[in-house]
Amino acid sequence: MAMPTPEQWMARALTLARRGRYTTHPNPRVGCVLVKEGRLVGEGFHRRAGEPHAEILALRAAGTAARGATAYVTLEPCAHQGRTGPCARALVDAGVARVVAAMQDPNPRVAGQGFTILREAGIEVACGLLEAEARALNPGFIRRMSEGRPFVCLKMAMSLDGRTAMRSGESQWITGPQARSAVQRLRAECGAVMTGVESIIFDNSRLTVRADQLGLADAETIARRQPLRVVVDSRLRMPEAAACLREPGRTLVATRSEDGERRARLEAAGAEVVVVPAGEGGRVDLSALLAHLAAEEEVNEVLLETGATLAGAMLDAGLIDELQLFMAPTLLGGEARPLFQLPGLERMTQQRPLEILDIRAIGQDWRITARPRVAAGD
Amino acid sequence: MAMPTPEQWMARALTLARRGRYTTHPNPRVGCVLVKEGRLVGEGFHRRAGEPHAEILALRAAGTAARGATAYVTLEPCAHQGRTGPCARALVDAGVARVVAAMQDPNPRVAGQGFTILREAGIEVACGLLEAEARALNPGFIRRMSEGRPFVCLKMAMSLDGRTAMRSGESQWITGPQARSAVQRLRAECGAVMTGVESIIFDNSRLTVRADQLGLADAETIARRQPLRVVVDSRLRMPEAAACLREPGRTLVATRSEDGERRARLEAAGAEVVVVPAGEGGRVDLSALLAHLAAEEEVNEVLLETGATLAGAMLDAGLIDELQLFMAPTLLGGEARPLFQLPGLERMTQQRPLEILDIRAIGQDWRITARPRVAAGD
Repeated sequence: MAMPTPEQWMARALTLARRGRYTTHPNPRVGCVLVKEGRLVGEGFHRRAGEPHAEILALRAAGTAARGATAYVTLEPCAHQGRTGPCARALVDAGVARVVAAMQDPNPRVAGQGFTILREAGIEVACGLLEAEARALNPGFIRRMSEGRPFVCLKMAMSLDGRTAMRSGESQWITGPQARSAVQRLRAECGAVMTGVESIIFDNSRLTVRADQLGLADAETIARRQPLRVVVDSRLRMPEAAACLREPGRTLVATRSEDGERRARLEAAGAEVVVVPAGEGGRVDLSALLAHLAAEEEVNEVLLETGATLAGAMLDAGLIDELQLFMAPTLLGGEARPLFQLPGLERMTQQRPLEILDIRAIGQDWRITARPRVAAGD
Repeated sequence: MAMPTPEQWMARALTLARRGRYTTHPNPRVGCVLVKEGRLVGEGFHRRAGEPHAEILALRAAGTAARGATAYVTLEPCAHQGRTGPCARALVDAGVARVVAAMQDPNPRVAGQGFTILREAGIEVACGLLEAEARALNPGFIRRMSEGRPFVCLKMAMSLDGRTAMRSGESQWITGPQARSAVQRLRAECGAVMTGVESIIFDNSRLTVRADQLGLADAETIARRQPLRVVVDSRLRMPEAAACLREPGRTLVATRSEDGERRARLEAAGAEVVVVPAGEGGRVDLSALLAHLAAEEEVNEVLLETGATLAGAMLDAGLIDELQLFMAPTLLGGEARPLFQLPGLERMTQQRPLEILDIRAIGQDWRITARPRVAAGD
């Protein structure tokens, strides 16, 4: 049998890293493989903040076999004194001969320092192997480290004619159980689930991860961490009786209101209230809210689950990085609720172009992955 | 090399038949392969009404080699004295030993008579090989023969959020050149292209097959037959200046109006006017119109290219057999024009379920093939 290639070892490290996709928050997903003389001598992945990094677990598994080995790691080994000590130092101490990383640390203020530690200790360092795949593992961590805001994924369930609900608001259920289960997994991957207050008022959305709907073996463990629930509520209309306030996990209400009495009542009901800067029309500045979520809550990925108005506002503010549209094979008609309200869009030249990355069947529905495309000249 | 299987010979006959897809109207697309001792001795397909049937061409190609051969034919050989004589008789006269047909003649009044002629002459007959594929070749001919109405395919170009035009009506171009070329090929396959008078009034649609947009080698020949243009115009609002009236081919205006003066002016402008029975609200009875197109115009397939109102009326009347939706990766927003107006659809239980048969990329757009699904209990 041919010896595995470096790409294959890195692919193994990426597969390991993916096992942490639901649990590493707010840390990145990272995998590590130690290889000596063409043989795997140790491997590991980061599972949970506060637990060891991937490199440390791989070194522990390898023991003395780490000496002279090559480490394949999906992210530059850390240089800072974290809860488990700098990984770059641990690789040096274990006598690793060579480190192949898929990508640099995305934080521009620290990028390369892990590599510097390794190189200064005489270790050969290479970077960039399967970098695109490694970046796709941690879109939110990268965005937060490099731009100070989370990666925002808009999820919507719609009919083939682009409708999310009846005029009355009735929408249960447009899509089938497999699509709803996929949405549960999207929630579980994210640091926060964001919605508008109207989704709370009219649908009483819970926005929780439900173990029995995840369709995963370790669902109970995953559902123990509930993503932060973020409600955009400029005028503080959030009902104290909202179901999400009685669910495990935190609910953050982002407002422009200074109404201390309403705030106190909401806080007594279990909400946390944050006053954010004013944006257009005196409403919550969505960009500032995202910056707050990155800086104060260490949120890497935000799943936006909302109606046409907030979805349109986020899109037009350039704050949506990805769309996950679950399209059901049904028609709801011209009176049903639209996907996006895009005020001022009157001419074809003003259309909002997207790039569709993938369309695939999921149960009887179809999952469309797209991202906004910036028009030439913008 | 292994001898080709009967399925492979029939597949060859189906491939031949498809070469007539744009030109056999109003006849069915038919292919025939003659095989003797495992070798192809003759083949043919029907190209154009008035020209020989597939079997006749295959027999001519085979000459005396047809004696003792097996004929693979995609449709039961005809028993009637047509322009080229009954094919069943020609197969008998040529001494063919065996006939394998994909399907019976769909006309219930004549089905099986071709087989009877063959069997009575001592020829072994089998039927049903690759029948589903053969039926898919001629959905309109089969529908017309068995039910007295054409097969109706609704084509729409839409944005990802299910919009066909801006509120103003502006819609050029939502989809790209490859999708528009595919629409041209759909038109070329159909016996008639049908629209509502508003598409004529507001868009001045020509509804023609344009050789330079077909993307086919024999485009000039194909575009020589223009599908019948059918305008649904209950109140006879069709403008005499409509561009489609100056195009090659016929334009049929289906109306409820008895206004003789308007009718005379339209006829002078080149239109043909037909008064059809009244349906709901005194408007054109769409079912009666389709029956007229089948009986009087021998239309097999109708391509419906229209707006949300007529599309919704056709859907709700159960008259749409297939949907071809060309979905562009763009958003037009909640004020843009909807795909379907479905009056009275207020509750999720009233949604119109579809079955999506296929989604595939076409240029930068996506082509969705779907059909209405009758809800359980309907």
